[in-house]
Amino acid sequence: MNGISLLEPQIVKPTLLLDESRARHNIARMAKKADQSGVRFRPHFKTHQSAAIGQWFRDYDVTAITVSSVDMAHYFALHGWKDITVAFPVNIRQIESTDRLAAKIRLGLVLESTESAGFLGKHLNAEVSAWIKIDTGYGRTGIAWSDETGLTNVAQAITEAPRLRLEGILTHAGHTYGAGSAESILSIYRESVERMDFAQTTLTANGYPARISIGDTPGCSLVNSFEGVDEVRPGNFVFYDISQLQFGSCQERDIAVALACPVVAKHPNRQQIVLYGGAIHLSKESLSGADGRPIFGLIARPEDRGWSPVLENSWVVSLSQEHGIVQADERLLISVKVGDLLLVLPVHSCLTANLLGRYLTLEGNWIEMARF
Amino acid sequence: MNGISLLEPQIVKPTLLLDESRARHNIARMAKKADQSGVRFRPHFKTHQSAAIGQWFRDYDVTAITVSSVDMAHYFALHGWKDITVAFPVNIRQIESTDRLAAKIRLGLVLESTESAGFLGKHLNAEVSAWIKIDTGYGRTGIAWSDETGLTNVAQAITEAPRLRLEGILTHAGHTYGAGSAESILSIYRESVERMDFAQTTLTANGYPARISIGDTPGCSLVNSFEGVDEVRPGNFVFYDISQLQFGSCQERDIAVALACPVVAKHPNRQQIVLYGGAIHLSKESLSGADGRPIFGLIARPEDRGWSPVLENSWVVSLSQEHGIVQADERLLISVKVGDLLLVLPVHSCLTANLLGRYLTLEGNWIEMARF
Repeated sequence: MNGISLLEPQIVKPTLLLDESRARHNIARMAKKADQSGVRFRPHFKTHQSAAIGQWFRDYDVTAITVSSVDMAHYFALHGWKDITVAFPVNIRQIESTDRLAAKIRLGLVLESTESAGFLGKHLNAEVSAWIKIDTGYGRTGIAWSDETGLTNVAQAITEAPRLRLEGILTHAGHTYGAGSAESILSIYRESVERMDFAQTTLTANGYPARISIGDTPGCSLVNSFEGVDEVRPGNFVFYDISQLQFGSCQERDIAVALACPVVAKHPNRQQIVLYGGAIHLSKESLSGADGRPIFGLIARPEDRGWSPVLENSWVVSLSQEHGIVQADERLLISVKVGDLLLVLPVHSCLTANLLGRYLTLEGNWIEMARF
Repeated sequence: MNGISLLEPQIVKPTLLLDESRARHNIARMAKKADQSGVRFRPHFKTHQSAAIGQWFRDYDVTAITVSSVDMAHYFALHGWKDITVAFPVNIRQIESTDRLAAKIRLGLVLESTESAGFLGKHLNAEVSAWIKIDTGYGRTGIAWSDETGLTNVAQAITEAPRLRLEGILTHAGHTYGAGSAESILSIYRESVERMDFAQTTLTANGYPARISIGDTPGCSLVNSFEGVDEVRPGNFVFYDISQLQFGSCQERDIAVALACPVVAKHPNRQQIVLYGGAIHLSKESLSGADGRPIFGLIARPEDRGWSPVLENSWVVSLSQEHGIVQADERLLISVKVGDLLLVLPVHSCLTANLLGRYLTLEGNWIEMARF
């Protein structure tokens, strides 16, 4: 029999448990949707940052990936990935490292200024695929979707730069994360695709044909098909988390990671349990609870094959560096003892994974990851 | 000539700069205050987590330290520290590792229940110093300072446990962090020391003499002398950060770390600069700005011997995994170019250091740290 009850003896400190079957199910579902829509599936690997987990994606015919830094691209290139897009505004200070990488693999870079295009054109010795970053409303980075002059200027600068090949336009509609409901997420998704279509039409009319790449987990999870785009780059979906659960982009049974934390103290007078598991494990990312106060994680109990459904009326209400304070339901408070383990479902699985640095599968295998 | 202008060519990605002279000045000042007060200085090493930085403390006659986990204690024990307190409620799941450590060094553990005392008494083979954790008003962990029954029960359980030696009572008045003004911090500090004195008197009257250990950076920084206690355990003071600056517990010139971040994009229309430097570098810890919106860091410019005073009207207003968005003053916006470096003074230096994993001194030396 698998499951956490067998793992318990080897869990002595905060440990990130990974349910491989859930993660594989999440990968399979997204890969199938991309396949049925006839679009390229280029998953973002910043969520797991692990060569071993990357291998799982190969079972679903994934050959192209997204990463968030040049160093992360080097890591996955070393582990056999040949087609990698760095979905972050190009960092010209890393030009040497970028050029070395471009000599080895099919490398995609993201640009949003003529200056960056000019710089790359002058300093790259190897060919690179260039994606123009588009802002479809998130307001973080990119050229506004409706800015014809901005778009064509950058497209022209890319076309004129010797080693750059204009591949397409790329966006991250990150405002789906604050949308508040599944309906709003879908509406932002559709609007974003329409705006990318507009930008594509603008570029084509000016003589710059371009493919469309999109990718945010909430939108990609909720939509039924990826009609109208050429490529999708979601990342968080491999694990999901309680943010995605709150958005409606996953079910609780899809969440594939949970932090196992030893109970180190109980305070019945204020109905609190103190966990060994704090900000250096979960990150300080929080959700807003029903009463407006922050929530840093939901609580589950260890079970034979993983963890229980989340407990009602119990959540992590504050974090210090190593302490997690659980406001506990009466039944939880009575039944739990110092030395027991509780599971915390994280608010943001990408940040939690990055902090832990490795995973323990329910089968008892340690999976290493890289940190950059 | 020292300084960041010489370091700039080797900084290609987010890099934590450390001003050694500032850190040494911070150590010297706190060590001197402890010495003049006749109390033991047992600094908390969770802030820097580095054997090399630990060595600096030896120049100020520090021989006893505090850490926040058993693994961190093992790390510093390997680097020659012989007297270590783990200032975290004892984690009985790590009993074997704890016992191995106790056989090698003078180990202090923190307890708050008779159950933990009983467990340690049954399973430890080596001697351990036991500190009773006291809650002087923070409300996170510990026995309430006024709870005579609770205090004497734990003191008795410790005394009866074969390998435990009752050393004293220990508190962390972490509510100084939310105090709002230097005056309130001092008032909490004094109240906390009075309450520790009360708890000590209670224990003495019941036949359990106990020393007093306190330690939070705001209180320890602002008070003139440590009268009335036996030991102080501040940690953050070695680097400080903009939280401590806001509390009034340090001056800007005391802040010894800053994250150097490449500029990757500019958005003049919304007066924003995009940095390569996000939640996986700074952590999501935030302060509340003047308008109530969160601030994730203050901005400085590189200078020959470190960094400039913080710039007015410019701050990090949002963080994604790798992106930091700076709301920029007009002058900053005009003068900065893509590819330049800006410095971010972190909200919480402990979390930022833990995320970066190493430091670059202004003299150009890389200092490694351990992550647990």
